[in-house]
Amino acid sequence: MRKKIEIEQIRPMDIEKRSFEIISEELGEREKLLKPGTELIVKRCIHTSADFDYAENLYFSEGCVEQALAAIREGASIVTDTQMARSGINKNVLKRYGGEVLCFMSDKDVAEEAKRRGVTRAVVSMEKAASLNRPLIFAIGNAPTALIHLSQLIDEKRIDPRLVIGVPVGFVNVVASKELIIDTGVPCIVARGRKGGSNIAACICNALLYMLTDNRGY
Amino acid sequence: MRKKIEIEQIRPMDIEKRSFEIISEELGEREKLLKPGTELIVKRCIHTSADFDYAENLYFSEGCVEQALAAIREGASIVTDTQMARSGINKNVLKRYGGEVLCFMSDKDVAEEAKRRGVTRAVVSMEKAASLNRPLIFAIGNAPTALIHLSQLIDEKRIDPRLVIGVPVGFVNVVASKELIIDTGVPCIVARGRKGGSNIAACICNALLYMLTDNRGY
Repeated sequence: MRKKIEIEQIRPMDIEKRSFEIISEELGEREKLLKPGTELIVKRCIHTSADFDYAENLYFSEGCVEQALAAIREGASIVTDTQMARSGINKNVLKRYGGEVLCFMSDKDVAEEAKRRGVTRAVVSMEKAASLNRPLIFAIGNAPTALIHLSQLIDEKRIDPRLVIGVPVGFVNVVASKELIIDTGVPCIVARGRKGGSNIAACICNALLYMLTDNRGY
Repeated sequence: MRKKIEIEQIRPMDIEKRSFEIISEELGEREKLLKPGTELIVKRCIHTSADFDYAENLYFSEGCVEQALAAIREGASIVTDTQMARSGINKNVLKRYGGEVLCFMSDKDVAEEAKRRGVTRAVVSMEKAASLNRPLIFAIGNAPTALIHLSQLIDEKRIDPRLVIGVPVGFVNVVASKELIIDTGVPCIVARGRKGGSNIAACICNALLYMLTDNRGY
């Protein structure tokens, strides 16, 4: 005999709203500890991962959300270090403000130069981004080497990002790369510790875009 | 004064290997509790998420790994429920065996039919996949409605997947959808509980592909 498994009847359009209600319920008092203005970003990260660690591990530099929203309004583009993150970012909304999503990781010239120099493609991708003369937001969900190299480029004043979303995931140099980017003083949103990923990078971008464009209120 | 942040010097090609060593070290005795033959999949999920919960929440139906590898060798294609998962799956390796990655979620006919019927696009996508006459692996990282509908199609013998990777993430019907798919008796790999995601769906596909094609041994 098959066991009985309960499915909640819910309209497709209501699923996300209900999810955010559950997240708020389970956060409880912890929601009040979040930095004002960052709640929607934190809750969207939890929604994307079902991992409440994001209620504690997200670092927001002072004023970074307002700075990021201003940058998007001015037409900033988003540079990512994975095709997955590029795929997950809501490009239609970004386009309304004049921005686009860029990822140089699969570019042939990037691969060749990385091989020649014995560095990661992420390092070369960051240099390629630094050569662009326009406002940029970086969404790094995979490569700590991207974040490490970005912090060097920032220190050397070769690049001046409007926001760095520093959420690579993993075990080698990931924790340190995030502390380095915080230490530069650049506007940043960082998932401290080992956790993160392309999904989290895309989700933080989307949270910012939805804050600008709709009235979901969650 | 800036604090000192230590960066480990490591060649790009050695980063993944070192990451898997750290995962094995931290798993310790728990690695021996994993179902033989599933270790590489479990460790790749931990590598993708930095979340050791995957050492405990992954369910593998009896013989599913061998069945999946046989299906890929026979040219099975992979159907996903997000463009992000499609983007993350190693399509070059899959192509060597004759398979491709399919995602119908952005198809215009799917969107229109979903709206007309008041169901999710994921439901219509699963029906579109069911109409294909070829061996299929499903990699569901987002929509519990996809998994719920798949289990109906399986019960009605309208589809006979070679493997279902059931790893939607979230809060509404996610846990139940996973139990439903396990209950069908179809070959499946499922992340029990709320966790999962497009990144986990892609990562399990890639773990299977790498088991077939290389000798990394991690």
